[in-house]
Amino acid sequence: MTAYLHNIDEGFIRQASNNIRKHIHRTAVLKSENLNSIIGASLFFKCENFQKAGAFKSRGAVNTVFSLSVDDLKKGVATHSSGNHAAALSRAAQLRNTKAFIVMPDNSSKVKIDAVKNYNGIITFCKPTLKDREDTLRKIISKTDAIEIHPYNDARIIAGQATAAMELFEEIKDLDIIMAPVGGGGLLSGTALATHFFSPETKVVAAEPEGAKDACLSFYGNKFIPSTNPITIADGLLTSLGSLTYPIIKDHVAQIVTVHEEAIVKAMILVWERMKIIIEPSAAVPLAALLQKNAPAGNKEFHFKNKRIGIILSGGNLDPNNLPW
Amino acid sequence: MTAYLHNIDEGFIRQASNNIRKHIHRTAVLKSENLNSIIGASLFFKCENFQKAGAFKSRGAVNTVFSLSVDDLKKGVATHSSGNHAAALSRAAQLRNTKAFIVMPDNSSKVKIDAVKNYNGIITFCKPTLKDREDTLRKIISKTDAIEIHPYNDARIIAGQATAAMELFEEIKDLDIIMAPVGGGGLLSGTALATHFFSPETKVVAAEPEGAKDACLSFYGNKFIPSTNPITIADGLLTSLGSLTYPIIKDHVAQIVTVHEEAIVKAMILVWERMKIIIEPSAAVPLAALLQKNAPAGNKEFHFKNKRIGIILSGGNLDPNNLPW
Repeated sequence: MTAYLHNIDEGFIRQASNNIRKHIHRTAVLKSENLNSIIGASLFFKCENFQKAGAFKSRGAVNTVFSLSVDDLKKGVATHSSGNHAAALSRAAQLRNTKAFIVMPDNSSKVKIDAVKNYNGIITFCKPTLKDREDTLRKIISKTDAIEIHPYNDARIIAGQATAAMELFEEIKDLDIIMAPVGGGGLLSGTALATHFFSPETKVVAAEPEGAKDACLSFYGNKFIPSTNPITIADGLLTSLGSLTYPIIKDHVAQIVTVHEEAIVKAMILVWERMKIIIEPSAAVPLAALLQKNAPAGNKEFHFKNKRIGIILSGGNLDPNNLPW
Repeated sequence: MTAYLHNIDEGFIRQASNNIRKHIHRTAVLKSENLNSIIGASLFFKCENFQKAGAFKSRGAVNTVFSLSVDDLKKGVATHSSGNHAAALSRAAQLRNTKAFIVMPDNSSKVKIDAVKNYNGIITFCKPTLKDREDTLRKIISKTDAIEIHPYNDARIIAGQATAAMELFEEIKDLDIIMAPVGGGGLLSGTALATHFFSPETKVVAAEPEGAKDACLSFYGNKFIPSTNPITIADGLLTSLGSLTYPIIKDHVAQIVTVHEEAIVKAMILVWERMKIIIEPSAAVPLAALLQKNAPAGNKEFHFKNKRIGIILSGGNLDPNNLPW
C-alpha cells in the first residue's frame, strides 16, 4: 500500500462525507432511455451540475475548509483559480464566516467573476499566466497570512471529490465502468479511490480533451508530463496533474480516453436536447468519449457496449450568452 | 355543477393518471434556495421539461390515444400543430402501433420537425395560417379516415394534463398558489380542475404573455375573445382558448397575470443559471410573473410574497442554436 492510501483511506472519505453532508447537495442520479439507445449502454449520470455553486468543487472545498479550526481560519483562505474552485472556496469560506482571497486571471469570464462575488470572495486580478497567478497568490498570502487551499493537490480536496462517486455507488449497484473527466485530477483521483474502496469491481475510465492530454501522456508514458499550451473548450481541464493526484491515477485508473472538440460540443447538445439539463464543456467530455465515431489516434480500444456506466457530470457553469458552438 | 364537471370529474382524472402511468414520467419536483431568496417565496417546480417528448403534452396525448380501441385506431390519428402536441401525439400513436398524421406550418422550426420525425409522425406541410392548417387537416382526414385529436379542446386531453398538478399536490402539501402558463388552456384548465378536486384551498393563478393575452381579455371581459395576431417568444402560447377550456378557466382560475417579453427571457436565464435546467419560453412565463418589476398596466395586484407556490414548468424544447436572446 502506497503512502497516499494512508492519507486517504476509506475512513477519511467517509469522514469527508460526514463533514460536508449539511452543506452540499446529495445530487440526483439521472437516466435517459434516449441516450441509452443512442450509446448502446446503460448510463447513470451523477449530476454535479446541480451541486452548490454549480460543480463538484463544492465537495472538496467544503471538506477542506470545515477541517480547519477557527484559529486556522482567522486570516482567511486563498487560492488562484479562474473557475469553479474559486466560487466553491468562496462559498465554503462564507459558511465558516471567514474571508476567501481569490486570484483570478484578468481574462476570466464575467459569469465566473460574478459567481465569486456572489459568495463575497475578495478578487485580485492578475495576468493570465501560471507564473503571474502563482506570484500574485504568494504576494496576497504574505500580506494576509491566509491559508492556501490548492484546487486539487490536497488530500482533503481529493477525499471531498471522492464523495460524488461514493454516493453514486450507494445508489446504483453493479456498475461495470465509472467515468470522470480529468484536468488536475482531483475529481478523477477521488473517483478512483472511491471505486477502490466501495466498488472494486468497477473499472475507472477517464476522459480528456485531445488538446489538453497531459494526463493521458503521463499515464501511458509512465512519468509526470505537465500540460503545455493546452487548447480546449473544456476550460475546467486545462491544468496539469499534481504530485498527489498523478500516482493515485496511475495506480487506480484503468484507461484514459481522449476526445475531439467536436465530440464535446455534440455531447453537450445531446444532453441539452435529450435530458434538458445544462452541463459545461468539461462535464461533457466522458459522454463525448462514448459518442465519437473517429477517436483520436493513439486511443486504446474502449469497450463500453451493453455496459452499466456511471458518469460524473462535473459541473453546469455555462454562460448562456457565450455558448461554445 | 356545470356540464363539463360531469365529463371531467375526480374519477376521470384519476383514470387518466392510471392510463398514462406506464408511458410517461412521474416528473421531479425541484426547489432552489437561490430562487426562493430572489423571489421571496417558496417555489416548487413541477418539471414537465423532463417529460417524455419534452413537455406536459405527452400526458394528454397518451391519455387520449390509450382511451381509443384498436378499431378506433386502425386508420391512425391526426392533428395540426407546430409544436409539442405534434411530437407527443406521434409518440403516443407509435406506442399504440398506429400512424400519426401531423399537419405542420412550413415555417416550423427544424427541432420541432425532427421531434415529430423521431416518433415516425407523418408530416404534411402547409402555409402558416390557421385557415390553411385547418383546411389541410380536413383534407388529410378525409383521405385517411384518421381520428382527429385536438391539442386542448378535448376532455381526455384536459384530464391528462390535470395529472401534472395532481402529482404535484400528492408530493407537496399546503400550496398557497399553483401557477401555469395559458395558451389554448389545456394545461391551465386541467390544473384548475386538479386543484378543485385535490387541493381546493390552493389559488390558481395563470400567467400569459402580454403580446398574446386573449385568455386574460376573455377572463376579465366575461366573454370568449379569440387570439388575433399574437406576438411572443412563448411559441406554445399563441393559440386561443377553446369552448371547453374557457368555461373551466372562468370558473376555477382566480387570476390571470400578463408578463413582458423581457421578463420571460430573464426568467429563462435565471432558471438556466440557478437550476441548471433547460426550459422553453412558454415554461418561463409563470416565473416571469414573479420576477417582473414593472408589470403591464391592467394587471391586478398579485400577492405572492412568503407564499408556497407550485409552478408547472410546461416544457423544455428549446433549440440550442436558436435561443430567444
